[in-house]
Amino acid sequence: MKLNKNLYIIGIGPGNLSDISRRAYQILKKVEVIVGYKKYIECIKELITEEQQIYISGMRKEKERVQKAIDYAKQGKKCALISSGDPGVYGMAGLALEMVEDQKINLKIDIVPGITAANAAAAVLGAPLMHDYTVISLSDILTPWNLIKKRLEAAAEADFITTLYNPRSSRRKKQLKKAREIFLEYRNPETPVGIVHSVGRDEEEVMITTLKKMPLEKVDMLTTVIIGNSQSYISNQKIITPRGYNI
Amino acid sequence: MKLNKNLYIIGIGPGNLSDISRRAYQILKKVEVIVGYKKYIECIKELITEEQQIYISGMRKEKERVQKAIDYAKQGKKCALISSGDPGVYGMAGLALEMVEDQKINLKIDIVPGITAANAAAAVLGAPLMHDYTVISLSDILTPWNLIKKRLEAAAEADFITTLYNPRSSRRKKQLKKAREIFLEYRNPETPVGIVHSVGRDEEEVMITTLKKMPLEKVDMLTTVIIGNSQSYISNQKIITPRGYNI
Repeated sequence: MKLNKNLYIIGIGPGNLSDISRRAYQILKKVEVIVGYKKYIECIKELITEEQQIYISGMRKEKERVQKAIDYAKQGKKCALISSGDPGVYGMAGLALEMVEDQKINLKIDIVPGITAANAAAAVLGAPLMHDYTVISLSDILTPWNLIKKRLEAAAEADFITTLYNPRSSRRKKQLKKAREIFLEYRNPETPVGIVHSVGRDEEEVMITTLKKMPLEKVDMLTTVIIGNSQSYISNQKIITPRGYNI
Repeated sequence: MKLNKNLYIIGIGPGNLSDISRRAYQILKKVEVIVGYKKYIECIKELITEEQQIYISGMRKEKERVQKAIDYAKQGKKCALISSGDPGVYGMAGLALEMVEDQKINLKIDIVPGITAANAAAAVLGAPLMHDYTVISLSDILTPWNLIKKRLEAAAEADFITTLYNPRSSRRKKQLKKAREIFLEYRNPETPVGIVHSVGRDEEEVMITTLKKMPLEKVDMLTTVIIGNSQSYISNQKIITPRGYNI
């Protein structure tokens, strides 16, 4: 495969070198520069060669990373900007397109999708996402809480399976508690809930519980939470949402 | 990698051998039997070796395929049952777990996630899924239309980006028309809509349009439709949904 673009926005999937796509892997092997958040660079460190230049930065430095990647690409270097999961889901794809547009640069960008946390977490939990679902981030840094709340209510009322991203951090605890309260208004307290910490990484921890019993304190920013719909059930330590086949 | 299970439910991603995960690829290389719908077997035919046994069946034969895969696995064969996209999203994972449970078989199953059509389509459209989103199937074969309608209304009202699976077939045309009507009640007629036919395959076709103008007749069962939220816009032939960063 020949690299015909200068800037690749790459989803590395949940964070191991098995669940990454073959395309993402091959591009990462071939680019001259890789730009990413330090934890994500750590996830792919085994494939990095000595010839490759790496630019690492910390949390909340998204704009700085995108700018670095744009600058390298403008210099004619083949550059990959990485996101965990899928770069199009709360990842770097949107910001990169916005900044390239804002700076009126003529730069072709390839967005390479990855397996997002909802799908990776669902696979270890069983088959919770087998019907219509929503993906909602509980982080209110960039989104007003009232809008998040409205979406939680809509998801709960219309019986969507719901995956929560960024559910809880050391500084931000009330959103998950409130989300549970909203779901309890519409859904049985026994509704299955799956909690997956660090999906796909060595530290992965999987817990299957219910809306009523879910231990909020076990949830942090590296956790994905999946709340079943009214048909979901737990069997053999797996969450299953029936699609509707007559078994 | 050693295969330590007898039954693997594998997501092959959008349908090319680049966007498949490295894990899925390696397992498919090593199993003795691959079971799948004929179009999906076609997608991976280049990796199949002469030693491998292939079981193919047609549309709506999902239960038959799962039963075959279970039977092979019970005989001690290493077997992969494939789904396009992610097996946990309207795929084979749920049905397989349900049937294994129903038949009270002690069979360990590995579910191998894949890139689902929402994420694959988003990548070729730009970055439409950068905020909270829903995934809704318009097929009313297994789901009552009233429930689908309720979910469309909830998604439209709470300003979710919405991805439609199974949007329209030769026999089932009114659901997409109705979905558009529902969204037009809540969202600007200029809201961006992305239509991707056969994402990731040779026949891939990408169209960026609006709620008002979307050509319903261009949409079929191989198409993924993504409707933006109130903030989505079109720029340089890409759909961008801002996450909320101050550029």
